[in-house]
This record gives sequence, C-alpha cells and structure tokens, in this order.
Amino acid sequence: MIAGVIGAAGYAGAELVRLLAGHPRITQPLSQGLLLGTVSHEGERIENVYPNFWGKISCPLVKPEEVVTGSDVVFASLPHGVGEPYAKACLEKGISFIDLSADFRFGDDEETFKAWYGKGYVMPELRKRSVYGLPELNREHLKALAASGPVIVGNPGCYPTGASLGIFPALAKGLAAVNNTGPLTIIVDAASGVTGGGREPQRSFHFPECSDSVAPYKVGSHRHVPEISRNLAEMAARAGKPAPALIFTPHLAPMNRGILSTIYIPLAKEWQAPAAGSASAPRPPAKEIENKTAEIRNVYADYYKDDPFVRILPQGVVASTGRVRQSNFCDVSIHLDQQGSTLIVITALDNMVKGAAGQAIENMNILFGFEETEGLGAVPAMF
Amino acid sequence: MIAGVIGAAGYAGAELVRLLAGHPRITQPLSQGLLLGTVSHEGERIENVYPNFWGKISCPLVKPEEVVTGSDVVFASLPHGVGEPYAKACLEKGISFIDLSADFRFGDDEETFKAWYGKGYVMPELRKRSVYGLPELNREHLKALAASGPVIVGNPGCYPTGASLGIFPALAKGLAAVNNTGPLTIIVDAASGVTGGGREPQRSFHFPECSDSVAPYKVGSHRHVPEISRNLAEMAARAGKPAPALIFTPHLAPMNRGILSTIYIPLAKEWQAPAAGSASAPRPPAKEIENKTAEIRNVYADYYKDDPFVRILPQGVVASTGRVRQSNFCDVSIHLDQQGSTLIVITALDNMVKGAAGQAIENMNILFGFEETEGLGAVPAMF
Amino acid sequence: MIAGVIGAAGYAGAELVRLLAGHPRITQPLSQGLLLGTVSHEGERIENVYPNFWGKISCPLVKPEEVVTGSDVVFASLPHGVGEPYAKACLEKGISFIDLSADFRFGDDEETFKAWYGKGYVMPELRKRSVYGLPELNREHLKALAASGPVIVGNPGCYPTGASLGIFPALAKGLAAVNNTGPLTIIVDAASGVTGGGREPQRSFHFPECSDSVAPYKVGSHRHVPEISRNLAEMAARAGKPAPALIFTPHLAPMNRGILSTIYIPLAKEWQAPAAGSASAPRPPAKEIENKTAEIRNVYADYYKDDPFVRILPQGVVASTGRVRQSNFCDVSIHLDQQGSTLIVITALDNMVKGAAGQAIENMNILFGFEETEGLGAVPAMF
Amino acid sequence: MIAGVIGAAGYAGAELVRLLAGHPRITQPLSQGLLLGTVSHEGERIENVYPNFWGKISCPLVKPEEVVTGSDVVFASLPHGVGEPYAKACLEKGISFIDLSADFRFGDDEETFKAWYGKGYVMPELRKRSVYGLPELNREHLKALAASGPVIVGNPGCYPTGASLGIFPALAKGLAAVNNTGPLTIIVDAASGVTGGGREPQRSFHFPECSDSVAPYKVGSHRHVPEISRNLAEMAARAGKPAPALIFTPHLAPMNRGILSTIYIPLAKEWQAPAAGSASAPRPPAKEIENKTAEIRNVYADYYKDDPFVRILPQGVVASTGRVRQSNFCDVSIHLDQQGSTLIVITALDNMVKGAAGQAIENMNILFGFEETEGLGAVPAMF
Repeated sequence: MIAGVIGAAGYAGAELVRLLAGHPRITQPLSQGLLLGTVSHEGERIENVYPNFWGKISCPLVKPEEVVTGSDVVFASLPHGVGEPYAKACLEKGISFIDLSADFRFGDDEETFKAWYGKGYVMPELRKRSVYGLPELNREHLKALAASGPVIVGNPGCYPTGASLGIFPALAKGLAAVNNTGPLTIIVDAASGVTGGGREPQRSFHFPECSDSVAPYKVGSHRHVPEISRNLAEMAARAGKPAPALIFTPHLAPMNRGILSTIYIPLAKEWQAPAAGSASAPRPPAKEIENKTAEIRNVYADYYKDDPFVRILPQGVVASTGRVRQSNFCDVSIHLDQQGSTLIVITALDNMVKGAAGQAIENMNILFGFEETEGLGAVPAMF
Repeated sequence: MIAGVIGAAGYAGAELVRLLAGHPRITQPLSQGLLLGTVSHEGERIENVYPNFWGKISCPLVKPEEVVTGSDVVFASLPHGVGEPYAKACLEKGISFIDLSADFRFGDDEETFKAWYGKGYVMPELRKRSVYGLPELNREHLKALAASGPVIVGNPGCYPTGASLGIFPALAKGLAAVNNTGPLTIIVDAASGVTGGGREPQRSFHFPECSDSVAPYKVGSHRHVPEISRNLAEMAARAGKPAPALIFTPHLAPMNRGILSTIYIPLAKEWQAPAAGSASAPRPPAKEIENKTAEIRNVYADYYKDDPFVRILPQGVVASTGRVRQSNFCDVSIHLDQQGSTLIVITALDNMVKGAAGQAIENMNILFGFEETEGLGAVPAMF
Repeated sequence: MIAGVIGAAGYAGAELVRLLAGHPRITQPLSQGLLLGTVSHEGERIENVYPNFWGKISCPLVKPEEVVTGSDVVFASLPHGVGEPYAKACLEKGISFIDLSADFRFGDDEETFKAWYGKGYVMPELRKRSVYGLPELNREHLKALAASGPVIVGNPGCYPTGASLGIFPALAKGLAAVNNTGPLTIIVDAASGVTGGGREPQRSFHFPECSDSVAPYKVGSHRHVPEISRNLAEMAARAGKPAPALIFTPHLAPMNRGILSTIYIPLAKEWQAPAAGSASAPRPPAKEIENKTAEIRNVYADYYKDDPFVRILPQGVVASTGRVRQSNFCDVSIHLDQQGSTLIVITALDNMVKGAAGQAIENMNILFGFEETEGLGAVPAMF
Repeated sequence: MIAGVIGAAGYAGAELVRLLAGHPRITQPLSQGLLLGTVSHEGERIENVYPNFWGKISCPLVKPEEVVTGSDVVFASLPHGVGEPYAKACLEKGISFIDLSADFRFGDDEETFKAWYGKGYVMPELRKRSVYGLPELNREHLKALAASGPVIVGNPGCYPTGASLGIFPALAKGLAAVNNTGPLTIIVDAASGVTGGGREPQRSFHFPECSDSVAPYKVGSHRHVPEISRNLAEMAARAGKPAPALIFTPHLAPMNRGILSTIYIPLAKEWQAPAAGSASAPRPPAKEIENKTAEIRNVYADYYKDDPFVRILPQGVVASTGRVRQSNFCDVSIHLDQQGSTLIVITALDNMVKGAAGQAIENMNILFGFEETEGLGAVPAMF
C-alpha cells in the first residue's frame, strides 16, 4: 500500500517516514510506497532535509494535494488549524486521514478547541467521521466507525497519551477516590524531551538554554490540559463517576526523546494502606504498603492485558524514558506514598513514537485490520 | 581564619574547598587557610584528586584529627553515621562543627533518624548543641545558640532545602488549606542533577544509563521525606496549624547540578480564584487567576524580603535549575492551576551550593557574625 | 536458527541480543531462538538485567558451555583473553564463533597482541581458522575460509572500523602520498560515545565527570593503534606500498553512541589542488579545491559501491555521529584543507552497531550466505 | 571605574557583564559601574534578557553612543564589521576599546580580513592604535601602545587562543620540525561547546540536532584559519623560522562551554624519541618516549612560567574542557605519539572566558596596569 505523509519535513513527519519505511505493508521500493508532502519544503527531497535517510529513503517532497491523490492512507503532521481541507479531500476520495494535530482531538466540542487553540472549526461536519485515536480508549470505536467507511483519526497529544494511560485503570476499576465524597484532584507532573518542541529552532530549545537544566513551562496553562481532562472525564463517565479535576505541569528536560509522567491519584478508602508513621514523623513504607501496591499493580496489569503497547513493570522497576526510546511502548510503574493514601503512577513513552508517529501507525493498523503491532516491533535499546 | 574540611575528596567536600577558596575571611595563602581531611585518600593531595584545582589550591589530605586540631571551624562531608566523634572533638576544643550529613538534622528525634538511616545516635547528648541549619527557618535560633559557645550545625539536605523554601510562606501566611477542615496533602515532585549522587561511580549514575533519560527513584521512600515533613510540621506549628502530609517523588535528570521542585499546595478558600471552566472542560487561566497569583507572589516576596538567597521571580519567569547554577540562590516562581484552587510553587537551586556547600558556608557566616553573603556572591551564569 | 551470545549482560552483548531479536533468520519465539550466556550473571534473566527488554525478550542467562552446546552460531562479548576455550569448543562442535574481543584480531601476530594486551595466546593454533572480520577488507577471505568449515571471526574494534574505512580507498587508489618519497603519516583524531567504555561503572564514565566535557585519553598509547596500523599496512601492501605511520588520539565525548573519526591523509602530488593563499595568509578554499574534492569523493564512492553499509555523503553534508545512531552505517564525508595538500576524511558510525554488534551480525550473514544486510536494515533516526 | 559593554544582550556580552560584576575595580553599586549597550534590545533591562542576573545586576540596555559617553573603558561584542565607529568614538574621547569581533584582529592586513569576512575596513586608520590582544603573545606590545594613549584591542577568537597557546613554545623553542628541511604542517583538531555559536537560535544548535552527537563543520574553511596561521607565522618569525602550514578542523560537541584543541606538531630531529615498534607493528610507548615527553613538558612550563592563566598539566593528567569551566585558564597537556616523532599538545579553555570575555578583561587589566588576574580568580569547578 501507499502511505502519504503531509508535513514530512517536520520532526513527527520524519518519524512517520522512518517508521513507515520499516512497515511490512508499505509497497517497496519506498520511492513508490511513500508519498511525502510538504507546505514549506516543496521541491526538496526528504533525504536532503534529513541526511540520516541517505541510501535508505529517497523521495521528493510534493504538494499536499498530490499526496491525497496518490495515497491509500494519509497522515498529516501540520500546525493546528490547517489540515481540514486535506481531511475532507481524503474522505471524498474514500481514504482515511490520520491527523497528528489537535484539530480532530475534540470531536464536536468546538468550544473547548477554540478556547485553547484560538480558532474555531472551518468544517465542523468532518467530526461526524472523526474519532480520537487513543487505541487503549477507543480501539473498538475506531473499528466500528471504520467499518462504515473512511475515517479521520485525531491522533492524541504526547502528554495526554502518557497521562491518560497512567490514570485510566484507576478510574475504571474504582481505585481512585470518588469526588462525590470530597474533591478528587489528579496531578500530572510531566517532563518532555526537546524533540517535543518540533524542528524549528527557538530560544527555549537552543542547546545552551535548555541543556543541563530542567525547566517547567506553561504552568497551569498548557494546551494538553483540556485533552487530558476530557479523556479522564470520559473514562470516569464510563465507570459512572464524575469527572476528576486535573492539574498538569509540563517540564522541559535535557533529553531528546521521552515523556515521563508522574501521576498522583488519591485512593479510595478501600484501596488505601495504613500510613507509615505520622504526618510530622513519617516512616519508610511498611509491608502493608508494598502488598497494597502489588494488588494495585495487578489491577493495572489485568486492565491492560490486551493492549500490546502498555507494559506494567514489575515491582522494583521504575518507568523511565530511556527504557522506551524509539519504541511504541508506554511503560507504567505503580507505587504508593508512605502514607498509603495516594497512588503514584509513573508512565514513560517516546514522545515521537507512542506519543506521535508510532501511535498514528498503530491507528492505521487498526483501521486496516492489520495486527496492531505491525511495523512497530522495535525493541527499545538500553542507551 | 583557618577552615577545616573533613571529607574533602567527596563532591560536597570539594565544592566546600572551591567556595572557601574564594571566601575573604580565609587566611591566604590557601595552603595555610585550608585544612583538608579525608578518611580514604590520606596522603594524596587535593589537586591530584581534583585536577581542576591545579595552580589554585594545593593542599595535602590529612587525617580528620589533624583537621580538628588546626582549624577555627570544621566542615564535615562524610557518610551518615560516622561524624559524631569529630563533632565532639570540635566542641571540646571550642570550635563549631558544620555537618553535611544527616546526623544532626533531626535533633533529639533519634527515632526518626534511626527509622530512615538504619542506626541510632552514638553520642545523643551532642544534640544539645546542635541546630538544623536552614537559615530561612533557624537563623535566629542558630545565632542564639552560637552566643553561648560552639555549636553543631546539621546542614540541610538538598531536596529539603528546595521543598521547604517553596512551602514555608504558604504555611506561615495561611495560604495553604488547613487540615482540620479536610486533609492537607502537599506534593513535592522534584528532580536532581547527578552530582547529588556523589563521586563514587554507580550504575545509576553511569553516563549511558542516566543520560538522555528522566528516571524517578525511591518513589515514596526517599530519606528526605522525614526531613521535609519535620520542617513543614515545624513551620505549621509556628503558625498554630497541624502538620501537613507530604508526598515526595525524586527524579534523576540528565544534568550535573540542580534541584528543581514542583510543589502542589491546596489553597485555603480565601486564596482561591474561580475555576477557568469545569473539570471536564477546563479553560485557560483567566485574569482573576493571574491577579490572585500576583497577590500570592507578593506574600512570598514579603516573606523572604530579608533572606538574601531567596529570589522570588517576577510574573512570566519560571524557575529553572540552569539559572542558579554555581550560585547560592534558591529561585522561587509562583503559579496557580487553571482551577484556581492549587498553588504551584517551583523552586530551583544548585544542589552543591544552596543544597550543600554554599548553605554550609552561609551557616558559617551566621555563626561568626559575618555578612551572610560573604564569599557567596557568585552571579549565576546563563549557561 | 539458534544464535548464542556469551557475555549477553554486557553492553555489546545486549546490543547483539537487541539486534538478533529483529533478525529474520532467528527462530521464533525468541526464547527458543536465542541462547544467552554469562559468566557473572548466571541465574538471572536478561529482561531483569535490561528492563528495556520487558515483554519482548525473556531468556535466562546460562553457562557459556550451554550456549555452545545449543547454538548454531555463537557470539562472544567477553573481556580480552578469556574466550579461546569457547572458540575451540565451537570449532570442535562444528559451528562458527564470532568474537568481539581482541583475541582473534591479530591472527598469528601473537607478539603484537601480547605487547598491547599483556598476555599471549593460550591456543595459538586456533588462528588457523580465524579471520579478521572487517567485511570491507576481508569479505572474500571470510567466505573462502567458511567454505572449508566453521570459522572464528575476530570482530574489529570500534575505532579501527571507523579509521580503516576512512583510509582504505586513499591507500588502495593511490590518493595518499607514498612514503618512499618521504614519510607518510596518517593522523586519526577520534571521539567516542560513553557506551564504548562498557557497562561497568567507572569514574571516567560517571555522569558528572564526563558530561559537558570533551576529554582525550590514552594519547599515543591506545590499544587500537596496532589494529589500525595493521589494517593500513595490509591495505597498503595490497596496493604495493609501504605501511604508513599512524597517529591516533581518542577522545571521550558526552554522548551515548558514536565514533567520529577525523582523518588527515597527506595527498600524493597528483591529487593535490593549488593552495588557497600562503601558509601565513591562507585564503578560503577556491573552486579548484572543491573540484578536486569532488574527484576524490567519486573515487571513494566507486571504491565502496558494493559495500552496503558505507555511505559516501554528498558535497555539503559532513558526517556526524547523530546521523548513524542505531544503524549499521559508516558514513564518510570527503574534504580538503585550504592548502589543497591534505585529504580530510570524516567517518561516523555507531560504536555499538557497525563498531561492534551490528558488524558481528554482518559477519554472521556473510558466513551463512545470507544477504549481508539482513536484520540490519534500521533507518537511523535524526535524533 | 565604569565599564561599558556594547552588545550586552549577546552571550559574550552577558559573560562580560557577569565577570565585570565581580571585578573589584568596577564601581558599586553595579547599576553605576556598568553601562550596558545594545543594538537590538534597546529599552529592555539586562535582568529581563538574562533572568539569572535577577537580584544581582539590574541595568537598562541603552544606545551604544551612551555607553561610549559614560564609560572609562568600552567592550564591544558585536557582529563583525559594525564596531569601527564606536572604536573611533572611544579613541576620540580618550578611552580604550576592547573589541570581541574579528574587526581588529588582523591589523593592517585588510586583505586577509576581507577574504574571509567578506568586507573591507571602513576606517583602516584605526589599526594604527590597535593591537591583537593575546596577552601571551602581545602583553608587552599592548602595554607599550597603551603608554602613548588609548588603544583598540582586537580580542582573539576562541579557537585561535587555544590553538596558538598550544603551539607557541614549540615554535619559539625549536621543538617543531623546521620547514626548510621539509614541509612543516601543524594540524589543529578542535571541538567547541555550543555557546560558541552565540545566542540566536539556529538549526545547528537546536538541542535535538546537536545533542548526543559530535559534528565537524566548515572543514578546511573556518574563519579562524587565517587568525591562527598569522599567530603561528608571527611566533615562527620571532624565532627566525618560516611560517608553518596549518590545517584546522572544528567540531561541534554536545556541551555548553569549552574549546578542546588536539594539536599535532612534527618534532625536530633532536626532540624526537625512538619509535616504539614499526609502522605496521607499533608498540606501546617506551620509557624513552616518556622521558622525552617530560623534557618537552618542562620546556612548555618554563615558557609559560610568567603567564598566570596557562596551566601546564603534570604527567598523567590530560587537558579536558570540564576542568576549566567558567575559569580563565588555558590548560595544556603534553604527549608524544608512539613513534616518538610527533608532539601532541592538548589545550582546553572555556570559550566564553579565556576564549572571549575573560581574555577581554585580562586585556583591560593589562591596559590599566592592574594585576592581570584581577576579577578573574574563579577556581574552576569539577562539574
């Protein structure tokens, strides 16, 4: 099959190209199986923009329209708010459109999209055929919609993927405190590698400014807040619970790839363990805390038993971004605080893979009825 | 004056040497003003252990006993549980002992120390002359004790310094929700540079294992939990409030120096701002949230107006570790979440300076009645 | 087929495991296709030593003898001087042994091996069946030897691979000045990522000591000197020329993977271009220099036209380690100095792949008559 | 005294500000002792551009003309080719001008400047009062010129400082082979930290592009070639020798600060040691090579005995950039190759200090008759 990528010169676009190049369903030679589009680099060749592709991938960068015309499926990695016409063209042509921008992540909640992204929908009706493409949340929904024709996938944001996957089981399985007996606030404290900022040079991502430093940013105001909140509200609703409140703080860390999310979820009474010590004189976690942690870990493991890309780490291993580099895994490790009342979930993923291009391909696999793991089998390296 | 450093070959010891070398009160030439002691490197010279000192600092590493004998003040940077005899010898000789281990951080609460550090006190009576040396908490206490003779300073841990300084004003000034109207849990999510792990090579700090990755560790069980909890309890008690509960998660970040603490403090009703949007559909922070943030920032600025090393950053600047590198500053930035109900305080310091050697020298300055900033005036570089 | 890896817990061993896991000839499931051996981690499981393997590779670490018994081919990544018995056992069993240590890189020149590695051969006769496994030098030799039975491959060192590949065409095609008309000295100034130092923590590779710094080491005395020298001598001899002298300086750079070699080769008169300016007042390279560079680039491209893993970069692109990360490529870029008399060749490879595990698998492919690129097709990522 | 800095918002400018803030001759408070000028940031305050200055340095950024008017000495850190009018204004006002651009590094050799920087001099007559400010080369020249009135200092480039200091003794003391008995070519293979690229974001310095990679650039065509060549020619001429040819290859390394130069100098016959082994079978360096290295190290140490910022490292210590971070030192270590015929000199300096702002202040100290080390006494940290 022929896969099209609009916005191939950006980082997420280039990562799509790299991963698609190893996908067994893509027509060989790659110069026939890939159709690469661009807005700003027309006339260049992908291997000149990304010399790492030399000798492996050699394709011209063409107009987006040509990509739509020639492809069996189209991925788009464009700035927010410009992809709708290509989505429409795909539907009209009868092929699916997998979008890495935020344009199709909010479905018919245009108001929220507008509040955070500063512009409304131009073609709101497209959302009838769109689905939010987090497989662990919407795999069945996606399959069902695809059964009736081509679809638009709103591929999730990188932070929302790591945050949501760390919280879903707690909401679905009743681990989290419920907010009709008091406020439930979930805190997601997350760190991202610098590729998350994209390819265009900016002062924040200038090596001397961001290396050897950890820097929070957009505290209390990051655009991924509404996307995470919506996911949590949806999962809570499925379990018949009210939406939890979310606090989300992103940090820039001096690494290339990775999203690390440290998530704090107040536990329902029945899932708590007795405190080790008091508030003013705490003690190291006792056996009861370890046992309760193991129980909760089992709940998580069971919840994700059919999700090929979520790894629940065993006791003693803490999720970290280095361990998932260049893979489509989202690693999850389970912990309790020394008071036994708060669940601490750590999730780690590669922002360019499970957080962007890899998940997009996972969605393609689902749409086409392929094995969900096809082309995404890379074993992460340790370093 | 002659300053002694026991444990000069370790990282914190070497940083003490570096900073003392620039302190105006230290006798010149430095070979006479510094007395460097060691347990494991006896017979070596400091400039051979740390070639960066070549041509600037040239001193043999001698027995700890010789350091005590020849110095006017002694710093110790030793493993936990071995420094008491030197502390005793100093008191007997009539000089003060500034200890960078945890041995004197818990005063007469031997039980807590034992629970977390695995051994009890050998000379518990020494705590009568010891004080926890966080100047912003105990400056007056330290001065008062020093007025009656030589003292032992339990120099704070790196994480506890950053966490405590970010929380103190909220407790002292009634910003934090009070836990008799419901549970008050403060979350400190923190990241440390790798020098925090000390000089001895370990797998966790081996470059290929820790570079290009963010890795949480000792989740819910780090030894700094009781130290922070105690500090918070003490500050709360001063304000007539119950001790808050603490959740603390440390992360290792791929940088050399720095502690970044992202702190979540539920606000008392009167300090909250109206939520922007709902839990399931939040909105970007509105003007009211910005105004309330400014108010709270003023409270913090006022609280620290006489503390020379705490910088309350202006609106629009977020604390980050890179901005305090090699300085004794603790930077603090103030934020609110989009719901207006949680105060997010970010603090940043250099773990080797304000988090260890710099703060120890600050304590020396206080003990001797020097200007608190003497020898600590380094302007942080941007990179 | 079943591949055995002795020393699987080391970095090169783990990289072998990672790459073999994706090799199409290895029996699935991997727990049957891989036999992992260890000296020091017996009884552990590979996925506990390397948690990045969780859910993908699950194998116990067994005794080396069991690896030999059960495998169709054996890789060994052991310290120098301990692998001979396993090599012998393989030959006796009738299978090939691909060794990543230096033990079999020097063939029957035991004297040189002894001079640099401090010990002689225990089973010198094994060298009758051994070949130095640099495919670009010895592919045919390797095939020929394999035709007559199982062989031992002395897999090249990381630095020697990058250095030799950058110099071979200059020697083979008469670009280099010849040292019977004056001394020919080739300088290789190289930088390595920290994984080159292996998995065991050491002070030099402790993050705070090696990050944010470039540090030369073993200047004039690195063990790869004789291996590179021998390669150059052999290639020169093939072209009927005397052996060039080699100067080699390795540097440790703050990166995980990669060997960058900057190589200076004095040009034969006929390959020189006129100097731009004089020695005391040089000028920017003129058109003649650019033209001559292009000519030489063509010679290199032609020389390597049948070597699938050597990429001669086009004019304007300089080789760098980031562009070959996790791939088996050796990138080569061609330059001249402004005087037109010295060829500057830059080569870049991933020390763990083309510099170790990838090249070992390449040798396996050659031995078994597979496509040389099988299982080694990873497209390098840009970041 | 009042120091002016034109171009204070750039990296070198900000480093000047940081170092001047600690200089004992600068009027306090700093708001009166520093006059900061800018072309592009007029109206801003330095502490807003560089938040690391908060609470320490608070100054508006004013027009360059105001800087000239109010200062006792003016530093300029501007793009090449725009500073001449300010230099002229300073001379007319009777104060000295210390320029960090290349405009005054070439004296009356306008032709070379033009060839490499693309434009000629606008006010060539200014060179009558200018001197190339490498103290180790021109200290006396600088003093002599300053005795007759205000001067212009052409502050050296970062690479030329490290390269020249590593080569001078070899030329001055007859260690280097002489090129009337054959060609003398000196190779400088150097690596720079990313701050060398300045503050403006560019793709090459974008974190994901340059981290975790070593990348050569401008091979054979870097603008520092003519500056180094001129320095070498001058030193050779002082010793009555012809100018050596230079080959210079810069690399970008993933670190913030530092220039590491690995320098290859063919030795004169009488300074060579016997080869260890042959070209095709070299041996590890023998005692004779070590002895000869020690002799040469002594020559270097003696040569620099009165230069406070050059440190000749002892046997066994190799210069590396980490050891000079934030200091004005240039570290030099001395090595021989295993053939005994090439001197390998490693130099390391901080590109922002000895390579730019520190050296500029050193020149100010010389001009004003201060101790050369005033305000530059920082002991480098180990990490």
